[in-house]
Amino acid sequence: MMINGARLQSRINEVNQIGYNPEGISRLALTDQDKQARDYLVSQMKRLGLEINIDEIGNVFGIFKGKGGKYIGMGSHLDTVPNGGKYDGTLGVCTALEVVETLIDNTYTPEHSIVVCNFTNEEGVRFTPDMMGSMAYANPEKIGVLLSSTSDKNVSVKQALQNIGYSGNMKCGAIPFRYFIELHIEQGPILEAENVDIGIVQGVQGIYWAKVSIEGVNAHAGTTPMAMRTDPFQGFVALNNYLYALVDKTIDLKVTTGQLSVHPNAINVIPQHVEATLDIRHPEKKVLNEVIMRAKSFIRDTLNTQNMKAHLEQLVHIDPISFDNDIVHHIQQASQKLGFSYKKMISGAGHDAQLLADTYPAAMVFIPSKNGISHNFSEYSSPDQIEKGANVLLETVTGLDRI
Amino acid sequence: MMINGARLQSRINEVNQIGYNPEGISRLALTDQDKQARDYLVSQMKRLGLEINIDEIGNVFGIFKGKGGKYIGMGSHLDTVPNGGKYDGTLGVCTALEVVETLIDNTYTPEHSIVVCNFTNEEGVRFTPDMMGSMAYANPEKIGVLLSSTSDKNVSVKQALQNIGYSGNMKCGAIPFRYFIELHIEQGPILEAENVDIGIVQGVQGIYWAKVSIEGVNAHAGTTPMAMRTDPFQGFVALNNYLYALVDKTIDLKVTTGQLSVHPNAINVIPQHVEATLDIRHPEKKVLNEVIMRAKSFIRDTLNTQNMKAHLEQLVHIDPISFDNDIVHHIQQASQKLGFSYKKMISGAGHDAQLLADTYPAAMVFIPSKNGISHNFSEYSSPDQIEKGANVLLETVTGLDRI
Repeated sequence: MMINGARLQSRINEVNQIGYNPEGISRLALTDQDKQARDYLVSQMKRLGLEINIDEIGNVFGIFKGKGGKYIGMGSHLDTVPNGGKYDGTLGVCTALEVVETLIDNTYTPEHSIVVCNFTNEEGVRFTPDMMGSMAYANPEKIGVLLSSTSDKNVSVKQALQNIGYSGNMKCGAIPFRYFIELHIEQGPILEAENVDIGIVQGVQGIYWAKVSIEGVNAHAGTTPMAMRTDPFQGFVALNNYLYALVDKTIDLKVTTGQLSVHPNAINVIPQHVEATLDIRHPEKKVLNEVIMRAKSFIRDTLNTQNMKAHLEQLVHIDPISFDNDIVHHIQQASQKLGFSYKKMISGAGHDAQLLADTYPAAMVFIPSKNGISHNFSEYSSPDQIEKGANVLLETVTGLDRI
Repeated sequence: MMINGARLQSRINEVNQIGYNPEGISRLALTDQDKQARDYLVSQMKRLGLEINIDEIGNVFGIFKGKGGKYIGMGSHLDTVPNGGKYDGTLGVCTALEVVETLIDNTYTPEHSIVVCNFTNEEGVRFTPDMMGSMAYANPEKIGVLLSSTSDKNVSVKQALQNIGYSGNMKCGAIPFRYFIELHIEQGPILEAENVDIGIVQGVQGIYWAKVSIEGVNAHAGTTPMAMRTDPFQGFVALNNYLYALVDKTIDLKVTTGQLSVHPNAINVIPQHVEATLDIRHPEKKVLNEVIMRAKSFIRDTLNTQNMKAHLEQLVHIDPISFDNDIVHHIQQASQKLGFSYKKMISGAGHDAQLLADTYPAAMVFIPSKNGISHNFSEYSSPDQIEKGANVLLETVTGLDRI
């Protein structure tokens, strides 16, 4: 039993007609473009005879009924960032549909019900937080707060769902997944660089975001001796160098400064003030917390001198999560059976499966991303790479179905 | 023979009524405020019986006639930056007037003519380049270009001079200085920190300004392993660290990054592009050129990797200059005679005396600046510090007059 690669490509292309523009694909959550993509998904589910359920946060579920009362979920999200790519999220929903269509083609009768899922607002561009649908599904107690999110000032999530006709009656969590599995593009360069077909995702690294503000003493670049300066940019460089030294001796630690501004930003003035961000990630909670603690200590003990005042404001702190060992094992077995090369790895980005893992056994399958690029029109995975991933998903789901 | 400190303070205060506002002193070059300050200066020169000359770039000269045909110049500038301080420039003009008034009070008849000078547009805020009046005076061949400067889009320098009535007939350079001496606030922290009364300025350090642009590869901060990144911010940090290592082993070398921007400037995106400035200064031409060469080599050989493209654009390169040994010697003798502590030093900032030194023997006297602050309303030197500087100027000028 193998999936139909050409049919899968057609389905991906059909979805990407929606929100297509010369700069990319734009289907922001709960917009008219999102509605059109959902309508397409529902029409495909109906064509396949799936039972359609919409929950109160707008997640869409198409159930391929099994003999027993348990559920195996597959899927991802159809929303995109502005001018995003064709595969992030879309691929996970389309392959889930393709897996079910292949099962039907092969008159496969599952032991457990197989559920094709589309989660609401994974990207978090129009409404925060991101991964909202999977968060609500795994944590139904949060539904009230999430439905009243007003980050789009004109409309709440609840109203936006009603506007596009996807405010459902089903309670979040009403379909309890025995297993959930998400196929996704890697959005990173590892699989391509190592020429590996399949990423078996064992967990998602933890994330810490902070804003660092350093106040120094602005002074004349020509008249102030080096030894008499209180230069907050050099203070930030010292923090950066300290953290990079930790990176050198800590496997899997990632540290990034993506934002930095200097005030007053004049060529011959030693800055008064620097603001910059830190993005720190690690797959182990203990290591991540240790690095955060060291960064805070460095700021408190080394940067806060007589004249320099440094301050760290935490923006995000999400612990790492570990995926389900049974699913990971079945993905590995499926890859081996199909003769595909694979690599166990940790996801660098956040995904719906990560939130679902709060409550349900979950894991992910990654396929290579060309140049590691995502959230961009140049996001690309080849038809061959996609087909391999979809076959691993099919094989894994049927493997889990036999447990 | 000693100057009258109270009279000098009154004169400084009178000048600073002009352009005074709650945020500072604003007398931009060739504005109505500059005209009022010039009119005040001319009225004081007339009161003292000086012969007034205005040259073609608007420099104002008041000649206290001596017996011989040679000239000793003293002075600075009356223009300020927007919301500047009370002393930068103003002090040099007011002390020059005070020195002459003291000579007259004491019925001193100079051997050489003593000239009180006010140079046009030292600050370079409204019209570029800065130090325009002294530049034209020492290099009369530049007068045409400077008069047609159109950096204020509404009016040329020539027209602005005519508008305020200070487009004179005297040719630049028509009064050839045997010596020129400028008293100025240090605009840096050294004299105050070392508790020294008088800075004997032996030269002005060279200046190199450049814009560094580094193009990297933007990528996801979560999914891109550290070893696979091409992060232009880390490239700039490497350049910064390399130059700071040179600072550690090169006496008097100053390196400053005052401007820096990161694109796209998103917390979870490894930057695509960084632009930053370098301000590099050293008093010795050979050392400055060596450091510039090393910075260029580092950019060319180390930062230009397969994926990273680094580029340096030179904005300014001014060689260091050395002041006249005779004048320096006389300033030292004057300080010793008066019992003031002194320190031989290099000016970190540019001054009119630096431009005049292209053609005339010149040097400077510095007095302490509180906290090294300048170009700001909190710029301050105490009446005692000012009086000491003015007495050194008086003693130096009479010393030079006897050569």
